[in-house]
Amino acid sequence: MSTSEARLMIAASETDADMYYATRFLAPDPFIFFQIGAKKHLLMSDLERDRARDQAQVDHVLSLSEYQKKAKKNDTDEEPSQIDALNEVLQEKNITHLNVPRAFAIATADDLRERGYTVAFPEGAYWPDREIKTPDEIEHIREAQQHTEAAMDAAITLIRNSEIRGDLLYHNGEPLTSETVKREIKFLLLERDYTAGHTIVACGDQACDPHNEGTGPLHAHQSIIIDIFPRSNTTGYFADLTRTVVKGDPSADLQNIYDAVLAGQNLVLDSIRADADSQAIHRSLTELFENRNFETGNTDGRMQGFFHGTGHGLGLEIHEPPRIGKTPGNLRAGHIVTIEPGLYYPGRGAVRIEDLGVVTEDGLENLTTYPKFLTV
Amino acid sequence: MSTSEARLMIAASETDADMYYATRFLAPDPFIFFQIGAKKHLLMSDLERDRARDQAQVDHVLSLSEYQKKAKKNDTDEEPSQIDALNEVLQEKNITHLNVPRAFAIATADDLRERGYTVAFPEGAYWPDREIKTPDEIEHIREAQQHTEAAMDAAITLIRNSEIRGDLLYHNGEPLTSETVKREIKFLLLERDYTAGHTIVACGDQACDPHNEGTGPLHAHQSIIIDIFPRSNTTGYFADLTRTVVKGDPSADLQNIYDAVLAGQNLVLDSIRADADSQAIHRSLTELFENRNFETGNTDGRMQGFFHGTGHGLGLEIHEPPRIGKTPGNLRAGHIVTIEPGLYYPGRGAVRIEDLGVVTEDGLENLTTYPKFLTV
Repeated sequence: MSTSEARLMIAASETDADMYYATRFLAPDPFIFFQIGAKKHLLMSDLERDRARDQAQVDHVLSLSEYQKKAKKNDTDEEPSQIDALNEVLQEKNITHLNVPRAFAIATADDLRERGYTVAFPEGAYWPDREIKTPDEIEHIREAQQHTEAAMDAAITLIRNSEIRGDLLYHNGEPLTSETVKREIKFLLLERDYTAGHTIVACGDQACDPHNEGTGPLHAHQSIIIDIFPRSNTTGYFADLTRTVVKGDPSADLQNIYDAVLAGQNLVLDSIRADADSQAIHRSLTELFENRNFETGNTDGRMQGFFHGTGHGLGLEIHEPPRIGKTPGNLRAGHIVTIEPGLYYPGRGAVRIEDLGVVTEDGLENLTTYPKFLTV
Repeated sequence: MSTSEARLMIAASETDADMYYATRFLAPDPFIFFQIGAKKHLLMSDLERDRARDQAQVDHVLSLSEYQKKAKKNDTDEEPSQIDALNEVLQEKNITHLNVPRAFAIATADDLRERGYTVAFPEGAYWPDREIKTPDEIEHIREAQQHTEAAMDAAITLIRNSEIRGDLLYHNGEPLTSETVKREIKFLLLERDYTAGHTIVACGDQACDPHNEGTGPLHAHQSIIIDIFPRSNTTGYFADLTRTVVKGDPSADLQNIYDAVLAGQNLVLDSIRADADSQAIHRSLTELFENRNFETGNTDGRMQGFFHGTGHGLGLEIHEPPRIGKTPGNLRAGHIVTIEPGLYYPGRGAVRIEDLGVVTEDGLENLTTYPKFLTV
């Protein structure tokens, strides 16, 4: 990197994982990060300046308001903007070329280009190292997965201990609902300082839509998909775990669907290692389902079969690179990925089973220990 | 809008409020929205297509994979991208000019420009109506504020019922900590289906940094700032409430600081109405503090005094337009804003008091009923 170049991000680190990754500083409003060579700088509002100096893992915290003062034109009353202040710093440091993330705001990029900067972005990730988890990050995610397993066990125990009346499940004399089970999960996780947003407890045809969170009474003899992906309030890392259970007697067809998904997951678990072709893994899973006559496509106006990816990377975001799916790619040691085949057939049942593990040179270190079974 | 124009957003509605506002559909991964005239369209992956058809408040849900197939070149094996598919739809509909949000990704914008589209963005908000809350939105936020008041009351009750030993507060024989009080707040709010992220319970010098969330034992005779801003898990709307309390005997200086902040808040509460100049309101608050000899600036290397905005808009985001601060602007009927003056002096104490209300033609309808007092 020549001395006229800088990396530049403007984002709120509470919602932008690249910003949090680079600074380890959490703030609710967008702020300015730039890096010249290896030196990381923040340009912070009066409100956040001192906290950033205490908490951010950067080399310099500059005052936005001081650079706004420097940028003030004598012939106008107008308050200089954040970008006016940024322009002032960049000129001071002789920066002319800016490397920004792909998601950088067009309005700011166009403004900077009009001021004479070149603005470029990488073909792929802004911080490619973010994909490869450090030992510390692996421990954060392992711990998150352990708490998620405890929540899964609490949810399944509730279903297991319920009573079948007619075709509904009852708990303490009341119909057991998706909401009750989600509540059990969310409270257990908050107890451990995790936030579980968008938890899925979906039964029967609801579960045939993979992101339907589920509502209302849970049914006996039908599959219930439980998908829990909480974020640690302290580390910011996610976990992700799915199991599918039936209280009562699954049909032979539903048992077959379950067996196919489990066989598919085992195939993938055995295929993952550093340098493995993720597109080929996804294709072999698709073929396994086809060979067992589980077809995928648009039937009666709905998607049926296996119509999502095999897995995704996970870390400071719930979905991040790499993907194991239709697009080309190779796995690398230190990737943390989910392995989550699923089959969805309205009227018959839905099954998804998801583990989470670290890609190693010769395989997968599964971070998930929770057992797999259909009937409870 | 001529027929060759379309609005275009590509974002994940779980994190992008403009996308959720336009579609009322929650999804974790970025998806494509475009609008031609008044007609809203989504271009959705196989995974989300059917759920979007059930849940999204749009006119047409198109299949991304079908347009990817149409975009497939005969002479290559390469899978068409999302943007290839979007290009296919836009060509089909003779669109050449795209209006995107200011935060639209530069990588996608440059790609579309290279394909021959003009890409423009507004000077301000993408959906200007989002600033003006509908009666339904006001009710969502009023309800959120009521639950937040219940959480505030639980927190203050815990502090009130604590016992002073030395200069610490004790509860059930243990030192009462920021963490214990935050836990009380978060559990009460989860009980009511709200998520309270980044809640602040900060005492003494910690509270002198307005976004310090607070850790460790709470002290007697020092001010404790409690700032709660949960989001409803069902509606997506936020609330925001701050109170400052002392258990024990505040110094005369701390009481003066409190009285100044309360007087400042009352001045602002009385100044707000439709068409009011928000910059002038902020200036008059600043002057009130100066007239009472509460100075603002960088002292001993730290910001002290009043160094944040007077208030901010709130809705599907915790901070959204309008701002009541240093930048020019006028309030409008239907704005929902916070009014949150604060003074911060390390070694002396920190005070912030925050209400939330709706701007009306002739004043402010305060959505906050929780009383204001310093000593508990």
